[in-house]
Amino acid sequence: MRYAREAIQKMSAYVPGEQPDTREYLKLNTNENPFPPSLRVCEALRGSLLSEAIVRYPPPLCDALRNTVSQVYSVPPEWIAVGNGSDELLNLVFRVILNPGDKVAYPVPTYSLYRTLAQIQEAEPVEIPFPEDFTLPERFLNTSSYLKVVCNPNSPTGTVVSQDILVRLLESADCPVLIDEAYADFAPYNALPLLFRYPHLLVARTLSKSFSFAGLRVGLLFAQPELLSGILKIKDSYNVNNLSQIAAIAALGDLDAMQCNVQAIRATRDRFSRAMEERGFYVYPSQANFVLVRKEGRSLASLYESLKKEKIMVRYFPSLPDCLRISIGLDRDMDRLIDTIDTLLDQDGRKNVQAFHLGSG
Amino acid sequence: MRYAREAIQKMSAYVPGEQPDTREYLKLNTNENPFPPSLRVCEALRGSLLSEAIVRYPPPLCDALRNTVSQVYSVPPEWIAVGNGSDELLNLVFRVILNPGDKVAYPVPTYSLYRTLAQIQEAEPVEIPFPEDFTLPERFLNTSSYLKVVCNPNSPTGTVVSQDILVRLLESADCPVLIDEAYADFAPYNALPLLFRYPHLLVARTLSKSFSFAGLRVGLLFAQPELLSGILKIKDSYNVNNLSQIAAIAALGDLDAMQCNVQAIRATRDRFSRAMEERGFYVYPSQANFVLVRKEGRSLASLYESLKKEKIMVRYFPSLPDCLRISIGLDRDMDRLIDTIDTLLDQDGRKNVQAFHLGSG
Repeated sequence: MRYAREAIQKMSAYVPGEQPDTREYLKLNTNENPFPPSLRVCEALRGSLLSEAIVRYPPPLCDALRNTVSQVYSVPPEWIAVGNGSDELLNLVFRVILNPGDKVAYPVPTYSLYRTLAQIQEAEPVEIPFPEDFTLPERFLNTSSYLKVVCNPNSPTGTVVSQDILVRLLESADCPVLIDEAYADFAPYNALPLLFRYPHLLVARTLSKSFSFAGLRVGLLFAQPELLSGILKIKDSYNVNNLSQIAAIAALGDLDAMQCNVQAIRATRDRFSRAMEERGFYVYPSQANFVLVRKEGRSLASLYESLKKEKIMVRYFPSLPDCLRISIGLDRDMDRLIDTIDTLLDQDGRKNVQAFHLGSG
Repeated sequence: MRYAREAIQKMSAYVPGEQPDTREYLKLNTNENPFPPSLRVCEALRGSLLSEAIVRYPPPLCDALRNTVSQVYSVPPEWIAVGNGSDELLNLVFRVILNPGDKVAYPVPTYSLYRTLAQIQEAEPVEIPFPEDFTLPERFLNTSSYLKVVCNPNSPTGTVVSQDILVRLLESADCPVLIDEAYADFAPYNALPLLFRYPHLLVARTLSKSFSFAGLRVGLLFAQPELLSGILKIKDSYNVNNLSQIAAIAALGDLDAMQCNVQAIRATRDRFSRAMEERGFYVYPSQANFVLVRKEGRSLASLYESLKKEKIMVRYFPSLPDCLRISIGLDRDMDRLIDTIDTLLDQDGRKNVQAFHLGSG
């Protein structure tokens, strides 16, 4: 008896960053925001607990939230879909557009969920390596496919592709183009203004990072109505729960709070980047709330494991063995990380010397 | 340029019941629970608002909630998947199992989402009419397919299929069998005890109805681990938000509150059913928190519209024109509905007489 399609049997699941108990661990592995959201979020949630928000189904299209998003981002409400996190929206885009065997192209390394989503849909991922300067690869611009995806700023590198290049991509693409802007609030520009010129552009956002909303699951997808209609047609009717809708309206009503947190994170990011460079790491130029650090040709798996033993979680990708992706926390979090790295590298240095002595003695 | 697969372009969306403002309407159209959830739910949510529940990603497998579910339902944690409402879980079951062209069979009339989910997946829905006694059709038992679905108690009829027949189905089925038990807490028995005997059985539950959780989106799927693994592999990593997980743990810790509400709804259901029978409606024998009422051969579309004008929402299905599905609310809600129906039928009677006079005069 068949329990699953063959493609599902063969594929591996996407593996998210670990979620250990944050009372025990300093968590710098999943790009969460170290600051709480706007106080208005708490107030709005508290006010809704005895209302009908729990008992009644949510509005399927998140009408009030869509109107708020429309005002904040100056995009018509009909151009907005709300999701249970942006992962749900990415999933829907892949599911709406791709038939089995269809090509979906994206530059790598990037968010590895794209490959998983392609595999679920039995589509063919076309993964084209970024050039050294992390602009878009020419081969990506020229390839023909049914969907192109760019994570911008990119994860796990934090690098950004310029507006000019995005325009070149949109001008040349023969298919819908999805710009995944999960980290856009930490970057100097974004693709929303291009929506009006390009009916084949989809822009995905999340409140998880800049708005400190990872636990509440609110994502946004922007596109012209014709492109959006398939997503709205197949999404679960009640995909965003009432409390998340209420909280998101409150958060979007207090952009100052978000921007203040973002400013602090950017300042800490730049300070932390310099500190890591001083310690001989290459730090990819980041416009996100994390940095990718590298010791070329040297596996950082043991540093990752040692940090974990010291109750600090960072992200290690087996496909990028000489790199670690480190989320930006509070100043004191990053100080603790730097101190711990210094201690570990000292020990490591001594161990290496010992090992050498032992080996040669 | 192709914005969507052809199958998506051709299909229609599932149309959920309307969600008007409940301050204005008496809402008896989407089988919500008229009672608030256990007070512990509010307390738990209030206690979590200043915690890290908002800022941190939720546990992907809902570990603590799974453990609670495991204890409450006496099923191992590894046999449980949690979803963003049971709709998400139904969606995942269809997506994991069905290839384009594969048959999925279910008796009708039933929850029309099944057809939508089949269409998204480009599977072939095999819809087999229930017999008059609403047991399972023989043709359904004998048909060969890749998935069989039974909504039990069934929506929109409220009728139940006996345990014996479900066992016959499971013994004879050559494919996974999904029993959608959204309304099981209102019924005298359920299929969970069969899980241990049948590795091809999936049981879906929701907290929306009996636990008054429609706004929070928590569904449960029970199956043996081999059958469940595909669903866990392709679900979104963080599909259930932290507040919903916290609330569900609190609700499941106070079964008395749920059962007390369920008892009250069942009593009101039986009283309301008798009142409708006295008014010449056929009332399908319901084991759910709604009843389907029928005036054979007479369209109830105008009654639906008239009730809506009187600010009472019930559910009218164009495919069942001589029926209305009515959710069970508080006693006073049902009294208001009955009084309104009495008034409307009186007016209707007079109008018919007038029309006859006018027409013949």
